[in-house]
Amino acid sequence: MNYQAILDDIYGQVMGIKDRGIVASYIPELANIDIQNFGLHLKTNTGEEFSVGNYNRGFSIQSISKVLSLALASSFENNGILNRLDVEPSGHPFNQLALLEIENGIPRNPFINAGAIVIADILVSQLDNPKQDFLDYVRDITNDASINYDFKVAQSEKDTGYRNYAAANLLKSFRNLKNDVETVLDFYFHQCALHMNCEQLTKAFHMFANRGKCISDKTRLTEQKVKRINAIMLTCGFYDEAGEFAFEVGLPGKSGVGGGIVALLPDHFVISVWSPGLNKRGNSKLGMLALEQFTTKTQLSIF
Amino acid sequence: MNYQAILDDIYGQVMGIKDRGIVASYIPELANIDIQNFGLHLKTNTGEEFSVGNYNRGFSIQSISKVLSLALASSFENNGILNRLDVEPSGHPFNQLALLEIENGIPRNPFINAGAIVIADILVSQLDNPKQDFLDYVRDITNDASINYDFKVAQSEKDTGYRNYAAANLLKSFRNLKNDVETVLDFYFHQCALHMNCEQLTKAFHMFANRGKCISDKTRLTEQKVKRINAIMLTCGFYDEAGEFAFEVGLPGKSGVGGGIVALLPDHFVISVWSPGLNKRGNSKLGMLALEQFTTKTQLSIF
Amino acid sequence: MNYQAILDDIYGQVMGIKDRGIVASYIPELANIDIQNFGLHLKTNTGEEFSVGNYNRGFSIQSISKVLSLALASSFENNGILNRLDVEPSGHPFNQLALLEIENGIPRNPFINAGAIVIADILVSQLDNPKQDFLDYVRDITNDASINYDFKVAQSEKDTGYRNYAAANLLKSFRNLKNDVETVLDFYFHQCALHMNCEQLTKAFHMFANRGKCISDKTRLTEQKVKRINAIMLTCGFYDEAGEFAFEVGLPGKSGVGGGIVALLPDHFVISVWSPGLNKRGNSKLGMLALEQFTTKTQLSIF
Amino acid sequence: MNYQAILDDIYGQVMGIKDRGIVASYIPELANIDIQNFGLHLKTNTGEEFSVGNYNRGFSIQSISKVLSLALASSFENNGILNRLDVEPSGHPFNQLALLEIENGIPRNPFINAGAIVIADILVSQLDNPKQDFLDYVRDITNDASINYDFKVAQSEKDTGYRNYAAANLLKSFRNLKNDVETVLDFYFHQCALHMNCEQLTKAFHMFANRGKCISDKTRLTEQKVKRINAIMLTCGFYDEAGEFAFEVGLPGKSGVGGGIVALLPDHFVISVWSPGLNKRGNSKLGMLALEQFTTKTQLSIF
Repeated sequence: MNYQAILDDIYGQVMGIKDRGIVASYIPELANIDIQNFGLHLKTNTGEEFSVGNYNRGFSIQSISKVLSLALASSFENNGILNRLDVEPSGHPFNQLALLEIENGIPRNPFINAGAIVIADILVSQLDNPKQDFLDYVRDITNDASINYDFKVAQSEKDTGYRNYAAANLLKSFRNLKNDVETVLDFYFHQCALHMNCEQLTKAFHMFANRGKCISDKTRLTEQKVKRINAIMLTCGFYDEAGEFAFEVGLPGKSGVGGGIVALLPDHFVISVWSPGLNKRGNSKLGMLALEQFTTKTQLSIF
Repeated sequence: MNYQAILDDIYGQVMGIKDRGIVASYIPELANIDIQNFGLHLKTNTGEEFSVGNYNRGFSIQSISKVLSLALASSFENNGILNRLDVEPSGHPFNQLALLEIENGIPRNPFINAGAIVIADILVSQLDNPKQDFLDYVRDITNDASINYDFKVAQSEKDTGYRNYAAANLLKSFRNLKNDVETVLDFYFHQCALHMNCEQLTKAFHMFANRGKCISDKTRLTEQKVKRINAIMLTCGFYDEAGEFAFEVGLPGKSGVGGGIVALLPDHFVISVWSPGLNKRGNSKLGMLALEQFTTKTQLSIF
Repeated sequence: MNYQAILDDIYGQVMGIKDRGIVASYIPELANIDIQNFGLHLKTNTGEEFSVGNYNRGFSIQSISKVLSLALASSFENNGILNRLDVEPSGHPFNQLALLEIENGIPRNPFINAGAIVIADILVSQLDNPKQDFLDYVRDITNDASINYDFKVAQSEKDTGYRNYAAANLLKSFRNLKNDVETVLDFYFHQCALHMNCEQLTKAFHMFANRGKCISDKTRLTEQKVKRINAIMLTCGFYDEAGEFAFEVGLPGKSGVGGGIVALLPDHFVISVWSPGLNKRGNSKLGMLALEQFTTKTQLSIF
Repeated sequence: MNYQAILDDIYGQVMGIKDRGIVASYIPELANIDIQNFGLHLKTNTGEEFSVGNYNRGFSIQSISKVLSLALASSFENNGILNRLDVEPSGHPFNQLALLEIENGIPRNPFINAGAIVIADILVSQLDNPKQDFLDYVRDITNDASINYDFKVAQSEKDTGYRNYAAANLLKSFRNLKNDVETVLDFYFHQCALHMNCEQLTKAFHMFANRGKCISDKTRLTEQKVKRINAIMLTCGFYDEAGEFAFEVGLPGKSGVGGGIVALLPDHFVISVWSPGLNKRGNSKLGMLALEQFTTKTQLSIF
């Protein structure tokens, strides 16, 4: 398949679209990004790489980091994840506390904020130097020591992330947070503030398309755990647009409000796209479109 | 009417009841109260006073304080209350965040916690020394300088009141909190930790039965504002048991998880009761029973 | 007090208002009413009567009938009402099924549609000829044999009242409806289609202001039951505007989508108003305003 | 792969389990099924077939039929499905009306009852003789003229399916039902009352694993439509256990309260299982277990 021609074609199409959505403004530091950015990077399991646009310009990966923190937490024995979280789609926007309250502090899945905060809590308990150790993990699976947090973005979230403080305190009231609210959120805001580009994301997610082996060939997850995380990405990776993404794209994936999306076909490839304008449901508008185009043109999907 | 005989009769009845409910345990400091306590104090507008039991033993008035903070906030010009709160019954437990989230950060009424936190925010903005000024206000309307906060209870709430932190952060995320979360909750936890006895409560609430004039004869509220606060007490004063209280007792009133209840018949009397065991809905079990008995025996109600 | 002057003053005021709300259209037959109609009738317990405008033109009383059906059902021994309904405000629009489903088929109160349908079911079980017997009851308490159902309105509801069919079937699924859905709704639609004018409504509600004695001096309810129904009117009589009505008007009352409202001050008076244009919450726009004006000018309220 | 050995192994395992769940009782006619039944049938795209137990004993396929009705409705041009339904997981039990009401009569997906009733409405509009034509369609794709409705089960649902009447009336109130409630539900109850065995189900679902071609080699759906229906099965096929099924089994599938489950791996196989005892969430207890075992032992899943 001529992937480069397909990517070029998609690039031509999306660059002609005027309505690119709206850049996330609730984290003030993110509001300054140029909405014209668009990048796309594809890496096949056979080692080929293809790209267009600003594929090597970094951005805030935000919720995409939740897959990486889940992978690291899953790799610990007796991590207790399944006692503290469910794995069901929420059917509701990503920041809804109502469901958490009704369901007695058990988050619906690890990709809604409350669930990711519980995963952060597990990592804070398990790691000696949580922020440094998590960064080292991401650098290691990506084989790229240049990856870092964007400390300004982390601080911006810390100053204004009232809903996350609300969620963490609500979890605490249900005794589903072991560490201090402040400590867990400090870790969580840094995790979300990871600054990466499309190429780095593709590499980081290689293990999910490759039965747990990352690009350095080291096995970081069992096959069973990879399958389960892929399943959660498919059912819960796109807030309340998860069904739509499965329906239109048909790949496990994860989006972030920074405008990034990563998706993958097990045993075949990982694809990352970035366009900072979001649609009404908080997913990258052109990113969604590009991935729809990609699976339509290639006829590749898990279904 | 022979009020003393009626109170004695009620006292005899309730003291024979074995199932006195359960003392609130979510504020650790409150869990130590002796459940055998029972006090009742009645003051008529004509100046007569009647009492039984531990009517002059102090307890934590908790949510009863919300009526006093609402009264003080209402007394300021341009307080903006009605732009920031609704006055509808919530039909839900006192600590539910779901409704607050669905209704975009506008609390249902000033007596659910989120609403009382908004009122606390208004007072923090309006008062020079919020905690001292509010205490002075309560001492003044009660004409009793001995009233004070229970600082241990306030601290206990501060250490464990995660739901209130969640509510305040959620309000903040909707821009319905002007001051810092910490500052507002510090005030709020002290307000709820007012330590008063039945007699003092009866006196403090005298103005609501007396068209705004308090026991020192000073007018602290307009007649219109008194009527409105009485209406809110009737429709929202008892969490999700407000309808039941109106149905069974038929008086405006307010309860607290410390086991106190104050109720009043406009132009006639105020009655306060204290029994620390709560029913399932968080209202004093014997207190509710005593007030039902009182209105049944006296045939006095607003209906 | 010069009631007639007050009514005239209110009449002058409301007739000058251009935005009269919107006539209910969901029952096709109601959509044809002239929005310019406005009537008001007041009857004191001392027997005086005052009126303005179209006080003797009939209209569809709709939900106001729920108070009369509740009164009749309450008058039976062992009616079982309190096992099948709650008496709490719903805090939600009048047609919400969600709450009914969450609360396992127990309606929040007798004035939401589901609750009134349960009351209708009780009457269908208790009465020999439900529709005729209920009509006779209303004629009797009003002392007016000319009152009748508007059969066209009843039929119109029957043809289009899908939400009421949904509610009745949901009740049936929770085994909280003893009779057939069709039979109960046929009764219910007729009950709501009672055609009465302001003067007749004032007379019908006289018993609620008069400790259970209706205008013919016959006692139809015990004092205790009257007090309880008045309490339910205050807390639940105005859909999700009940708190607002208590706050602004301060009287027990009940509204209907035909544009009628009845309110009363126990031991003093009953007042009925009719203006077919509704506000957003389904209550008569000018009717609400007129009653607010009335209690402001007279300083009469239960608070 | 030695499929027969794997099936035999699973059979041995499940037959040793004592707690087989509970047979659905809400449709009286279903309550009589012997809980000891267990059948399993597998058909690969290469034409091999494997089976154990009561794989050729018929049962009521119930909600499994929703996939077949969706497939038929999808095959019509301009079917309008996507204007009248969403494709998001509901995150809630299969019979919840609350969500339907909040979301203005747009069902979350075609597999919750309300959604399947809308699909039934589309078929009633599109087909000349809806019940006969739908039955012919199922016979045709299965190449088995012996398949029929179980008329007793259909009647049983008709007599007691109050929640479905409630849902259909609620849809009607939102104008999302074009035909009569009675007509649509008559069709829907028959559709759900299809009586089929595991082998027949495997054949009927062959087209979903075979890019739209059914066993007679006729193409009944485009590849794109097949992918989309598979996606909906994965995200919405198991009520509020969809995430769990994706996580534990990792195949698109659909369950019914008759105790049947069908699942498939695109381009590889279809597998059907039947065990009438249900778990708490309404899915076949041993069926779920058998499929988990199957994908664990074969290491075959879409992830």
